[in-house]
Amino acid sequence: MTLGEFDLIDRLLKPLAQGFPGALNLADDAALIDLPPGRQLVVAKDAVVADVHFLADDPPDLVAGKLLRVNLSDLAAMGAEPLAYLTAIARPTSINDAWLQRFAAGLLADQQRFGCHLIGGDTTSTTGPLVLSLTILGTVPTGRALTRSGARPGEDVWVSGTLGDAAIGLRVLRGLAVTEDEALELVGRYRTPRPRLALGQSLRGLASSAIDVSDGLVADLGHICTESKVAAVVDASLLPFSEVARGVPGAREAALAGGDDYELLFTAPVAGRPAIEALAAQIGHGITRIGHIEQGAGVTVVEADGQPVALPRHGWRHF
Amino acid sequence: MTLGEFDLIDRLLKPLAQGFPGALNLADDAALIDLPPGRQLVVAKDAVVADVHFLADDPPDLVAGKLLRVNLSDLAAMGAEPLAYLTAIARPTSINDAWLQRFAAGLLADQQRFGCHLIGGDTTSTTGPLVLSLTILGTVPTGRALTRSGARPGEDVWVSGTLGDAAIGLRVLRGLAVTEDEALELVGRYRTPRPRLALGQSLRGLASSAIDVSDGLVADLGHICTESKVAAVVDASLLPFSEVARGVPGAREAALAGGDDYELLFTAPVAGRPAIEALAAQIGHGITRIGHIEQGAGVTVVEADGQPVALPRHGWRHF
Repeated sequence: MTLGEFDLIDRLLKPLAQGFPGALNLADDAALIDLPPGRQLVVAKDAVVADVHFLADDPPDLVAGKLLRVNLSDLAAMGAEPLAYLTAIARPTSINDAWLQRFAAGLLADQQRFGCHLIGGDTTSTTGPLVLSLTILGTVPTGRALTRSGARPGEDVWVSGTLGDAAIGLRVLRGLAVTEDEALELVGRYRTPRPRLALGQSLRGLASSAIDVSDGLVADLGHICTESKVAAVVDASLLPFSEVARGVPGAREAALAGGDDYELLFTAPVAGRPAIEALAAQIGHGITRIGHIEQGAGVTVVEADGQPVALPRHGWRHF
Repeated sequence: MTLGEFDLIDRLLKPLAQGFPGALNLADDAALIDLPPGRQLVVAKDAVVADVHFLADDPPDLVAGKLLRVNLSDLAAMGAEPLAYLTAIARPTSINDAWLQRFAAGLLADQQRFGCHLIGGDTTSTTGPLVLSLTILGTVPTGRALTRSGARPGEDVWVSGTLGDAAIGLRVLRGLAVTEDEALELVGRYRTPRPRLALGQSLRGLASSAIDVSDGLVADLGHICTESKVAAVVDASLLPFSEVARGVPGAREAALAGGDDYELLFTAPVAGRPAIEALAAQIGHGITRIGHIEQGAGVTVVEADGQPVALPRHGWRHF
């Protein structure tokens, strides 16, 4: 049996709207949102396609979680707090009701974890692969959002957590041999990003620019450089690696260009170092100073002795 | 040549964000929106798939226009004013740059016509058919949005414009023989919906419930009945037809169940008749009283003599 669109919405999606009155129980043409005084709305939209952004046989709850989390990571990079989301699901007939039930369960678990609700969307059929899009809505105190355009020469470049794990995790899914424990950790980083929402919010007023690492460190730092009209220099010896990634050949390339890390990459004045180091101690994951901003354009990666590192292709292009 | 994602965004989409500062020139992780005091945000999201919702060889500018307009129609049904939108485009390799240029031109023409801006989104590849999703953002004075849940027994049922033209237009595209002038009009109604934004805004405080006719009159009136916990009776002899639709066999079925009309269907107390009739005179398209609300559940369609009309299947289900 395949549920029709209305039954699907009733049975699987309406529970995700409970507790958000403006969702109108997913029974209306649109949802209503009140913004508290003094706050701006923050909106982002990302789409994922089976076998482009995830594997068609990935567990449906993890696909749902990743879809929500990559969008939450966009909010984190703006210093915003999550509020609500809408989904559009274009599904082939191979996506049955059991798949959708596990998908909805994944959304429910993560919306509870991160504090947001489903408030609307659309479901339709397609003759092609599953396409999922999600629009995330958050809020930020007016005028205090982090953007990509505020980096200035002389400032530090920082990144949260560790880099390269997700890209190596994808290689593990494609056959790279590692131990079972290592596989669990690396594949987990690929399938289940950890949006750095608490960090992003704490960086308001502290960071001068921010972005989340989705295309790869060099590519995403390049976006900050372009929008801020500055150059960045990264010291490769300072890149933060997990214990497990450190032992894998190609870890440095994965850290520089692998993407899918969903760590926060940000710049801050030198005067902010004590505050950022205190934040790292408090927030439960590392924040590492990996370079600095200069006048000019583009990203340079150097060894500890200052010799330039030949850069791999700058991140992923999805076309 | 195929443009990469970044070039595509730069060249085709950034011009659509000009004039909306919070779009951050499409160069950041998310967009920022300030709501004027006393207004709520209204958000809806619809997706369309090639050969499900439009024909793969439809003109790209009209595909863009329809995508934007069906979402604007959701705002119209809430009595909202357009503000901004985000798109997600999952494109097969058959969608080339010329197609995308015409698609962007279609968005530009209609965003100027309806007063909104592109503020973000995502582009990706797919091995399947083109999938387009759009999230529309609008605003409404706080507490004054029209919803589906306010219809009460004794009220009138009204619909704007004419019904069935779009469904007949789709039949014309599939081979139904009509004159060239008739084809132009009917296919135009299918490809280029006219979101009734001015009417929706004027109905705030006048209508007790509203919906846009996308699935078909009976199905959409059924949504109002379900959400309002009432029954509706429609007099088939009162259904508004265009001159051209009136002469086509099956016009009544198209009006009752064809869908894609994107007219506003609403309920209002009897005392509102003079105001609604004055509105019709002022607004440039008809508004027709077609039935009434009763206690009970479901939609009944009757002939002028009160005999029930056998109903066709209730609207379209997209699965």
